[in-house]
Amino acid sequence: MEGRLDGDVVRVGGDARQRYYDSSGYGRPTGEGVALAPVEAAHLLFRGDLDAVDGMGFRKFLSVEDRLVVRFLVYKDFRERGFYLSPVREGWIDADDLAHDDSTAADHDRSTDGPRADLVVYPQGKGPWDDEIAYRVRIVGERESIRTSSLGRCVLAVVDEESEITYLDTTRPAIDGSTTDDLPTNVAGDLLADRAILWNPPDELYEAAFYGQRLAGRGAEGGPLQLSLVETAFLLGEGTIDLGVDLAAVVERGRRVEGERFDRRLAVYTALREAGLVPKTGFKFGADFRTYADVESVDSLGHSERLVRALPADHAFAPRELSLDVRLAGGVHKRMTFALTTPTGEIDWLAVERLTP
Amino acid sequence: MEGRLDGDVVRVGGDARQRYYDSSGYGRPTGEGVALAPVEAAHLLFRGDLDAVDGMGFRKFLSVEDRLVVRFLVYKDFRERGFYLSPVREGWIDADDLAHDDSTAADHDRSTDGPRADLVVYPQGKGPWDDEIAYRVRIVGERESIRTSSLGRCVLAVVDEESEITYLDTTRPAIDGSTTDDLPTNVAGDLLADRAILWNPPDELYEAAFYGQRLAGRGAEGGPLQLSLVETAFLLGEGTIDLGVDLAAVVERGRRVEGERFDRRLAVYTALREAGLVPKTGFKFGADFRTYADVESVDSLGHSERLVRALPADHAFAPRELSLDVRLAGGVHKRMTFALTTPTGEIDWLAVERLTP
Repeated sequence: MEGRLDGDVVRVGGDARQRYYDSSGYGRPTGEGVALAPVEAAHLLFRGDLDAVDGMGFRKFLSVEDRLVVRFLVYKDFRERGFYLSPVREGWIDADDLAHDDSTAADHDRSTDGPRADLVVYPQGKGPWDDEIAYRVRIVGERESIRTSSLGRCVLAVVDEESEITYLDTTRPAIDGSTTDDLPTNVAGDLLADRAILWNPPDELYEAAFYGQRLAGRGAEGGPLQLSLVETAFLLGEGTIDLGVDLAAVVERGRRVEGERFDRRLAVYTALREAGLVPKTGFKFGADFRTYADVESVDSLGHSERLVRALPADHAFAPRELSLDVRLAGGVHKRMTFALTTPTGEIDWLAVERLTP
Repeated sequence: MEGRLDGDVVRVGGDARQRYYDSSGYGRPTGEGVALAPVEAAHLLFRGDLDAVDGMGFRKFLSVEDRLVVRFLVYKDFRERGFYLSPVREGWIDADDLAHDDSTAADHDRSTDGPRADLVVYPQGKGPWDDEIAYRVRIVGERESIRTSSLGRCVLAVVDEESEITYLDTTRPAIDGSTTDDLPTNVAGDLLADRAILWNPPDELYEAAFYGQRLAGRGAEGGPLQLSLVETAFLLGEGTIDLGVDLAAVVERGRRVEGERFDRRLAVYTALREAGLVPKTGFKFGADFRTYADVESVDSLGHSERLVRALPADHAFAPRELSLDVRLAGGVHKRMTFALTTPTGEIDWLAVERLTP
C-alpha cells in the first residue's frame, strides 16, 4: 500500500483502517482509511507493511523531518517490546485526560501539571481504543537540556549519540519519615573553620537523632561531636547549640565557602528534618544528602533510602548529568531525589529512576 | 610533657626524641628534643601523650590554625590505620626525592611533575628513618577546587563536611590497546540531524571494528548502521565513509549541538582509536566514552575497562564531582579516566580511583 503526505500526516486509503488501526493500533481512523503520524508511517515503511509515501521508501522518508530518526528509534523500541502507542497530537490524544496505570509508578502525584509528552504508551494488551495509559513518554536527544519544571509525570526516553535509549521515570514523591527528636538547648561548642565541635554533648544528640559525627571516629562511645556547617546552622536556629556566634555569622561563613548553594542546602536540610527524615552528607555518592526516613537510634541505623541533590527550581538538566546521578543511585539501591528550591526556600521534590518498559 | 610554639613548630625537650621520634615517628629530632609540626602536636595532645603546648590543651590548640582540624582528621586516620607519616615541610621531607612504593599503584608514571603533597605516609612497619614512601597525600576540604594539573602522583584525602575522609588515588596511566582495523573506503550514507546512517555497510565496519550500531537493534545480523556524530567525523577524516558532505560540515554540526566539547571529544576519540582502543558512548554511565582495549569481534566483546571523560586541560575539579565519577566507575568495575585536552588537541590521561589505605 502507498500513503500520501497531507500536511503533517500521512493518509492511507482502502482497507488501511482495518490493517493498521484495528489490528495493530497505528494512526487514527478516517472512515475506511487512516491518518498516520510521520513516526508511525516510518515504522510501517521500516517493517515493509507500507510500500511508500509519495513514492519515498524508508530511507528517503526518514529525511522529511529533522528529528524523525530520533522519534522513530523510540517508537520502534516500544513496538519491539510489545506495546501499542500513539504520538501525542492535538485532536488525537490528550495525554492528561486518560487514566494513568499506577502499577509502574507508585508515588505519582496527579495534581502536578502535566508536562509535554511525545508518545502515550498503552499497557501491554491494550491500545488506542482503550482508556488506559502505561507511560507518557517524552523524547529527548542526549544533547538537549531539560527544564526541571517539565518533569514529574512522564517517562523520559533519552536517545544517546549512538542511538541507545535510556528510560527515566520522573515522579513527584511525597517525602516523609518518622524520626522524632527531643533536642536539648544551649549545648556549648566551638566553630572551627567550616565545622563545629561540641566538646561535651548530651548523648541523645548523636545517639538518638544522628546529628554530627564523633571526633574519635565511627562507633566511638561518647566524646566530642563534630557538626557540619549545615547541621551547625540548623541547630543554632533551633536554639540547641551555643557557639558564641549568631546564626547569621554561620550562614555568612557557609556562603563564603559555597555561595548560594549553602542557602539551598540549608533550606533542604531543614525541610527534610521537619518531614521526619535524617539527612547526612551524600558526598561519597556525589550528592548533597543521603536520607534515613526512620531513625530510632544510630546503633540500629538501617540503609539510607534516598540521595538528595539540592538544585535551583529553574535548573535545566543535561541528560548526561541526570544519567550519571540516576545510575549511581540505582547502583547503591537508593532513589535519586532532586530538591527544587526557590529563592524563598520553597521546595518541590522530584524523583528520577531508571525504568525498563 | 609540655611543648612550646616556636614559629610554626612545637618544640619539646627532655627525652622527647626517644618518646616521640624514635619510638613512634613523630617530628624531627633536634638533639635530645624534637620539633613537631602542629598536626603532630595536635595528635599527641589528642592522645594524651603530650600535656599542653604553651598551656593549651587539645581543644584550644586546634584553634591556632584555621585548617588544622582538617589536617588533624587525616593524620589521625592514618595513625589509626597503623601507618607512620610525616607532614611535608621544607627541610624535613622532600617528597619527590624518596622512592615510591609501586605496589599500590601499578601504572604511575614517574616522569610526571610531582604535585604538592601535605603528608608522606610510610609503608606499614616503616618510618621517617627509612627511605620509602607508600603514599603522598594531599589534603583537601570538600569545598576546595582542585586543578587537574596538580594531580597524577598523589593520593587525595578529601575531608567532607561531616569529617569523613575519602581517599582517591591519582595516576597518569598509559593508554594502549590491541584493536586493529582495516577500514574500507567511501562507504555511502546519509547525515541525519546529529547522526549518520550507512545503508549498506561492509560487515567488518561493525563486526570487526565496532563502529556504529545496527539500526535494527543490538544483535541484528547486517543491515543499516547508525554512526554517532563523533564516529562520523572520525570515519570521514579517514576516508572510510562518503556522506556527500565534508568533514568541516560535520564538525560544524557537532559544534552547533555541543560547542567546544565536540572538538575535545573528537580529539579524545581519535587518540583512543589510534592507541588501539575502541571508544563507545559512555552515556549510560554519565561519561563521554567507555573503552574496550582488545576488540577482535563484536561477538566476543569483553567488558569495557575504562570510563573516559574529556575535559579541558585547565579544568578544576569540585571534589564532589570527582567523588561521583569515581564512585560510579568503581561500582561498574571500570577505571575512571580523564582525558585532559589542550586546545591544540594534545591529551594527558589522568586516572582516579578510590583507595583504602
